[in-house]
Amino acid sequence: MKAIQYRTIGQGPELVEIETPEPGPGQIRIKVTAAGLCHSDWFVMGLPAEQYIYGLPLTLGHEGVGIADKLGDGVEGIELGASYAIYGPWGCGQCHACARGAENYCTRAAELGIQPPGLGSPGAMAEYVIIDDARHLVPIGDMDPVETVSLTDAGLTPYHAIMSSKDKLVAGTTAVVIGTGGLGHVGIQVLRAVTSATVIALDIADEKLALARDVGAHHALMSDDSAVDEIRRLTNGRGAEAVFDFTGVQPTLDIARQVVAVDGDIQIVGIGGGLLPTGFFSTPFGASVRAPYWGTRSELMEVLSLAQTGSVGVHVERYSMEQAVDAYTRLHDGKVQGRAVVVP
Amino acid sequence: MKAIQYRTIGQGPELVEIETPEPGPGQIRIKVTAAGLCHSDWFVMGLPAEQYIYGLPLTLGHEGVGIADKLGDGVEGIELGASYAIYGPWGCGQCHACARGAENYCTRAAELGIQPPGLGSPGAMAEYVIIDDARHLVPIGDMDPVETVSLTDAGLTPYHAIMSSKDKLVAGTTAVVIGTGGLGHVGIQVLRAVTSATVIALDIADEKLALARDVGAHHALMSDDSAVDEIRRLTNGRGAEAVFDFTGVQPTLDIARQVVAVDGDIQIVGIGGGLLPTGFFSTPFGASVRAPYWGTRSELMEVLSLAQTGSVGVHVERYSMEQAVDAYTRLHDGKVQGRAVVVP
Amino acid sequence: MKAIQYRTIGQGPELVEIETPEPGPGQIRIKVTAAGLCHSDWFVMGLPAEQYIYGLPLTLGHEGVGIADKLGDGVEGIELGASYAIYGPWGCGQCHACARGAENYCTRAAELGIQPPGLGSPGAMAEYVIIDDARHLVPIGDMDPVETVSLTDAGLTPYHAIMSSKDKLVAGTTAVVIGTGGLGHVGIQVLRAVTSATVIALDIADEKLALARDVGAHHALMSDDSAVDEIRRLTNGRGAEAVFDFTGVQPTLDIARQVVAVDGDIQIVGIGGGLLPTGFFSTPFGASVRAPYWGTRSELMEVLSLAQTGSVGVHVERYSMEQAVDAYTRLHDGKVQGRAVVVP
Amino acid sequence: MKAIQYRTIGQGPELVEIETPEPGPGQIRIKVTAAGLCHSDWFVMGLPAEQYIYGLPLTLGHEGVGIADKLGDGVEGIELGASYAIYGPWGCGQCHACARGAENYCTRAAELGIQPPGLGSPGAMAEYVIIDDARHLVPIGDMDPVETVSLTDAGLTPYHAIMSSKDKLVAGTTAVVIGTGGLGHVGIQVLRAVTSATVIALDIADEKLALARDVGAHHALMSDDSAVDEIRRLTNGRGAEAVFDFTGVQPTLDIARQVVAVDGDIQIVGIGGGLLPTGFFSTPFGASVRAPYWGTRSELMEVLSLAQTGSVGVHVERYSMEQAVDAYTRLHDGKVQGRAVVVP
Repeated sequence: MKAIQYRTIGQGPELVEIETPEPGPGQIRIKVTAAGLCHSDWFVMGLPAEQYIYGLPLTLGHEGVGIADKLGDGVEGIELGASYAIYGPWGCGQCHACARGAENYCTRAAELGIQPPGLGSPGAMAEYVIIDDARHLVPIGDMDPVETVSLTDAGLTPYHAIMSSKDKLVAGTTAVVIGTGGLGHVGIQVLRAVTSATVIALDIADEKLALARDVGAHHALMSDDSAVDEIRRLTNGRGAEAVFDFTGVQPTLDIARQVVAVDGDIQIVGIGGGLLPTGFFSTPFGASVRAPYWGTRSELMEVLSLAQTGSVGVHVERYSMEQAVDAYTRLHDGKVQGRAVVVP
Repeated sequence: MKAIQYRTIGQGPELVEIETPEPGPGQIRIKVTAAGLCHSDWFVMGLPAEQYIYGLPLTLGHEGVGIADKLGDGVEGIELGASYAIYGPWGCGQCHACARGAENYCTRAAELGIQPPGLGSPGAMAEYVIIDDARHLVPIGDMDPVETVSLTDAGLTPYHAIMSSKDKLVAGTTAVVIGTGGLGHVGIQVLRAVTSATVIALDIADEKLALARDVGAHHALMSDDSAVDEIRRLTNGRGAEAVFDFTGVQPTLDIARQVVAVDGDIQIVGIGGGLLPTGFFSTPFGASVRAPYWGTRSELMEVLSLAQTGSVGVHVERYSMEQAVDAYTRLHDGKVQGRAVVVP
Repeated sequence: MKAIQYRTIGQGPELVEIETPEPGPGQIRIKVTAAGLCHSDWFVMGLPAEQYIYGLPLTLGHEGVGIADKLGDGVEGIELGASYAIYGPWGCGQCHACARGAENYCTRAAELGIQPPGLGSPGAMAEYVIIDDARHLVPIGDMDPVETVSLTDAGLTPYHAIMSSKDKLVAGTTAVVIGTGGLGHVGIQVLRAVTSATVIALDIADEKLALARDVGAHHALMSDDSAVDEIRRLTNGRGAEAVFDFTGVQPTLDIARQVVAVDGDIQIVGIGGGLLPTGFFSTPFGASVRAPYWGTRSELMEVLSLAQTGSVGVHVERYSMEQAVDAYTRLHDGKVQGRAVVVP
Repeated sequence: MKAIQYRTIGQGPELVEIETPEPGPGQIRIKVTAAGLCHSDWFVMGLPAEQYIYGLPLTLGHEGVGIADKLGDGVEGIELGASYAIYGPWGCGQCHACARGAENYCTRAAELGIQPPGLGSPGAMAEYVIIDDARHLVPIGDMDPVETVSLTDAGLTPYHAIMSSKDKLVAGTTAVVIGTGGLGHVGIQVLRAVTSATVIALDIADEKLALARDVGAHHALMSDDSAVDEIRRLTNGRGAEAVFDFTGVQPTLDIARQVVAVDGDIQIVGIGGGLLPTGFFSTPFGASVRAPYWGTRSELMEVLSLAQTGSVGVHVERYSMEQAVDAYTRLHDGKVQGRAVVVP
């Protein structure tokens, strides 16, 4: 079968022909109908050899949707021919976090060498992908694969961050979204769908701010020094009860720190390398700072429901397997609008 | 192998010799080291044919602990020779409730014909039992099987009810436990371990009240008309922020209704056939009434941790397989102190 | 000043001239700009003498908005000439519930003889009303008094019920609203604003169902036997994760009982005299039933915010003080659309 | 009356004779029966003039207990002659946070110039203190003033931090307490009373570790490099689900960062000047960091209840008004065991 693999440290992805895999007992073979590209793929491919822990060759693709094509012995609850989204943050399945479906916070995955598809295990950027257990598949009915696939990461990750702060986002409060790209533009929609907070979006390009308003932001501001004062003004001096930073570089974290309200939340979602100094005289009383990771299995079901009712949608560009390497280049060069999806 | 089965409607349990089962793919064979008897076994065996839905013959035992003895193809995360507790409320594994580990509230189990071991599927009252999936086993390390086994129901059920009301049981509040038998005497210990509420226990026999005090109740009262006034007195007229009725007959529910505080909780745990009329002019403003069922998988882990640190213990009587039928008779006749356990 | 009072048991309300009250220390005199009529006024006026506990004469009006007109000694935080909504469920201010702003669940109000304005204390159906403490006033800025006043009860009461069930109403779930009148049509809007649940409304008249759809219900069904099957069908057999019964008569409670999901919530909001038998074999596993009362002070702030951003609005009919007695008659005869408001 | 005041920048506290204050409308005069000394008094007295914002002279004492001695006009709910604890974090009483009793997170206090007693307003280190509103007093019945007074800060502050993390501290989890002094030794007791977590205490002196064990810590470790490995070992590599740093200097925050579990909480309680860099590759996935402040009014009621039932106690040294200045010197020099209390 065809697959997109990362084969040599320092090189980019390649289109290769590899053997079609067979599902073992308890495993499911999925015929991929859509696979999403992600900035974190480039993060992985940018690591020097001594920090690279994902094995070679690595079939890319941690966002995947497809059809149950072949069931290993003993698989239950999966229907041949039905369409499924892949729940990516695989855990041990046995610890306290996994028992609640929060495999994204599995306490034993590292120790046991368990890695998500496309981030260690063979990913979905191929004609077929093997899923290790039925619990890592969520049925999507007749939802469109291409429009759905990015929800497994670009939807689930902001959804999880927002749900963690939802109790603070009652009517009359304010949420700030920094960075309105792949994840951020979904985050704005999720905030509008599941909270009644006022949403203020920040970015550095006019077309990004226009997109932010299009998808529901009440206010869209240039992400510069003036943003801090303007957010304080819009909130009568209170600041924002929750800030979601989808960029995570030092300048945006500095903004986050200055606009968060007393007892508010800062959720650092973007892996931009910034760190936020937290404590007295730096962050307001009671304000919490954290870097959440991906999301839980039941949250994936919920974000899929939001898409099904039209509350959330992802802007996608569609590519064939043969165009996938080019698509990765476009992504690298910042030319992708929304999210790039490969259709095998 | 030997097993205790219910074979004929209207008859009691029987000791029989049946074939030792083999695990299929994804399944685990457990060599049983302890199996618990429960009043609900008699509830099931008391049903007339037209209401009986559990199949015949039925191997009893929905409380079980044992050693992983043989693994079907594709089983992961289970260690041969290690000791496990069985998580009993099996669900579909695929719905939103199951995705959070709350298989006790699976929305599809009935539709799919999924039944717990000992309550439809072959149970643990046998030398070996087949578990359908690794997620239904929780490791118990070197905990004593006989002292541990009842936690899977008689521990988990009160624990789940209490955790559902935990946020209301802050310091200065009061919890009432009605019925201090198998489940109730564990409930008192759980309340002491996970809340700082004052615990008032009600029962109808002096030795039960003595047991209640022994395991940590601050007050133990006869469960009659005087109890209502006394609870009001002890709470300065407020009533109890949570009432756990482990009996569930009409007279105890009437007490529960009269002693619950404004905005408090009544958890009906005992299947005694009573119903509580809920609404304005019957229950106080904001008071909620519900009948919870068993517990979640992560809650089972937690109640096992409580036992491991000595915060919770079950009073048990120990029987051999050959004595099991007699033990059931003793249970039926109300002669068991605490919980009866069969050791194959 | 003019006031609408209930003066004689068994008689209706009367327009009277009484002395304009003066605020004592800590009190605030409000010049009323809008006062709402409510079905519960008729409930009170329908009580026989031996059950009537509100004192005579009783100035009606537990929904009120007005301007701070005169401050007693020591009042802080209230601005003369500014507009305020009255928080009606007055409590002792000193118990644990009051310390959290949940005066609606004050544990000492009855014992201390504290009664809400219009329900024991002199109400807002007058040119002036005395408020006992600054904490019972919430600033409304330049919001329209007439459109705002009903939020203090007809908005706050459904909002509180819905917030109590909000955690269960994630994306993919269903909320049922029974009765789409004064409170119900606000409830539908609140559900749409603060949750992403699918909303199904039930009522018994076509124009009520049309209103329900207008204000955001996804489905509107006749409240008869067919509703149960239709709700099960719309929820793939699961039932509704939350049911809000704004009628509370026995037939609607019977529907609520049959359509609530496992582990769902039934909130009885309407004082229709019905009672819901709760327990095993009547209500589903884990389903809770309660009759909440009014709402908390911070919830009033939140529902006012929802109105300010246009997420929630109340349909109102406007009357002068001279028309108020007629308006009460229209309300009694079921001729009011939405909510009737008196403007002194 | 006698009072302990800070009168000159750079000088310490002084014993002075000042006029006995009279309560205005809505105010209450408290005859002080106990007032607590706190490290933050020295923090305030150590500020240079340009950073000092508390006014001069400043009567010290933000921990106070006393008897209601004289009521201003319009005060309700306070009983002359009864004993009360002072709720110190005064807010505006009108914002959303204050409406929930969380005046510690008032969003308008700074803007309005509202300051706690002893930290801007005249404090309790005097024979009499004026309380601005009945809501800032919590009745303590016949509890001992000297043993109770420190709960208003040294009890409430750790209690609030712990309650914020309580949901993560289920059975089987671990809480780490860094610094077992005035606040930390109460924190250990609160953790034992309201959670079932295993408690590990860290400090740098053997007698402090002995005290930690005395008040309930399961483990007590030297707060050095070895602590990180030992905590990982005790938690099977998971780390601690919550870390409470009552010191807050950089070295202890570095330990906190290294021992917190995935999705765990770090609560920085001590104002030691340290900052914790939060984000990817510094703190674990999902781990949150915040610096909480004091506590809510209902939490003060709860921690008082814990003391009343004997679950929590503060080790105190008792001083007369004449000894107060010396006591401050002892506190400054680190010679106070537990908490120093002045009895006027």
